[in-house]
Amino acid sequence: MQNTRFEHPLNEKVRIYLRLEFLLHQMTHSCQLHDPWQHQIFFRALFELLEILDQVQVKADLAKDLEKQRNKFKNWLNLDGVDQQALQNVIDEMEQIQRKLLASCRLGQELRDDRFLSGIKQRFSIPGGSCSFDLPTLHHWLHLPLERRQQDLKQWLGHLSCLSQALNLWLRLIRDSSQYKPQVSRNGFFQYDTSDANLLRLEICPSYDVYPMISGHRSRFAIRFLPFTEEGKVAETIEFKLAIC
Amino acid sequence: MQNTRFEHPLNEKVRIYLRLEFLLHQMTHSCQLHDPWQHQIFFRALFELLEILDQVQVKADLAKDLEKQRNKFKNWLNLDGVDQQALQNVIDEMEQIQRKLLASCRLGQELRDDRFLSGIKQRFSIPGGSCSFDLPTLHHWLHLPLERRQQDLKQWLGHLSCLSQALNLWLRLIRDSSQYKPQVSRNGFFQYDTSDANLLRLEICPSYDVYPMISGHRSRFAIRFLPFTEEGKVAETIEFKLAIC
Repeated sequence: MQNTRFEHPLNEKVRIYLRLEFLLHQMTHSCQLHDPWQHQIFFRALFELLEILDQVQVKADLAKDLEKQRNKFKNWLNLDGVDQQALQNVIDEMEQIQRKLLASCRLGQELRDDRFLSGIKQRFSIPGGSCSFDLPTLHHWLHLPLERRQQDLKQWLGHLSCLSQALNLWLRLIRDSSQYKPQVSRNGFFQYDTSDANLLRLEICPSYDVYPMISGHRSRFAIRFLPFTEEGKVAETIEFKLAIC
Repeated sequence: MQNTRFEHPLNEKVRIYLRLEFLLHQMTHSCQLHDPWQHQIFFRALFELLEILDQVQVKADLAKDLEKQRNKFKNWLNLDGVDQQALQNVIDEMEQIQRKLLASCRLGQELRDDRFLSGIKQRFSIPGGSCSFDLPTLHHWLHLPLERRQQDLKQWLGHLSCLSQALNLWLRLIRDSSQYKPQVSRNGFFQYDTSDANLLRLEICPSYDVYPMISGHRSRFAIRFLPFTEEGKVAETIEFKLAIC
């Protein structure tokens, strides 16, 4: 049985990054429109993403985080046992992506200014509010040729490419910064002290039929495993894998 | 080129019925889970449907509407030129479905009481709020075997079967109550007087590149055709088909 992977952010910024990554995944996947309702996923993810970008200064945070990571990497240059070429490549990639991010206009601004998108945005939050009578423009768009619609979706998604690249790079580096280690929880509980961690990654076999409730911050966290079903029990000993990134 | 069909409710009740039908369509389609993000469509449609059922007394309205329609049909019994057997069958079907609807408990109550569903409902309205760290129970559920998940979705959908049957029957009868007739709009405008209408159905060729904005009520309505693109023009004469149901 394949393990289930859970991720948990240990600070507010990473929480936002993971949500944005999740929404961008949905948009990238659904922009093919292979399924007749996939446009619902695309537009909803797009509007939720814009809502987050309206509330949080993602651009500045992300650029700062890339800068911090880059400086850390620079300290490793000329260290023995480090693949200098690979490291220099990553540093160059970070520099390039950070520059693109900072040079971009306000994230998502082209999407906010789009006449079609801003016309349908409001109704999407009404329950069942994307019927043909609520959104006749959307309904008309849905009957345009598939290639035209896919092209529109790709163009809209393209406006988020510098966000997407910066986010993917930073999260990849953070995820790669630590290895999974086997751990054991007793009576469904596990606690740990750490320092300056950003992200927890946890892998557990679904046959335990439990899910983790994680609380904590960058220096200390606790995991409580809870039964999925009301009548379910939590095994006295649970073996799982944990990476503290 | 296939025509695009638009529907427009001429009263508030029909507006609600169409929204519910639209959400039930999404749920029925997505409960196969063939696409990895289809669960998003299912759960969102389910929660929006429950929100509507919380706000509006759908059960009583729908039962009354079925009753009204049934009485109308009863008056046609023994009329010359009416297929008596077919009519009696519909009347029987209406009676049976109406009885089931009235005998049911509060619509959607089993879904409101469901521990798993009520546990994930709140987070769904947060932008990007169904990440694994927001909803670990949902994340665990997503890793259960496909058959088990499909079975769960079908069971949840099953709790809405009497609503779905009554809605489908009433909307089918309303839609079948009128035929499409060719109409012409001049300078993008069309106005019409009618009596006791519930629903407009409009078919138009997408090559006009316009969408209809409809306003009105049961006895009078107006249709204004607007260009889909900012630089688009509305043809002086637009031929379309209209059914007033």
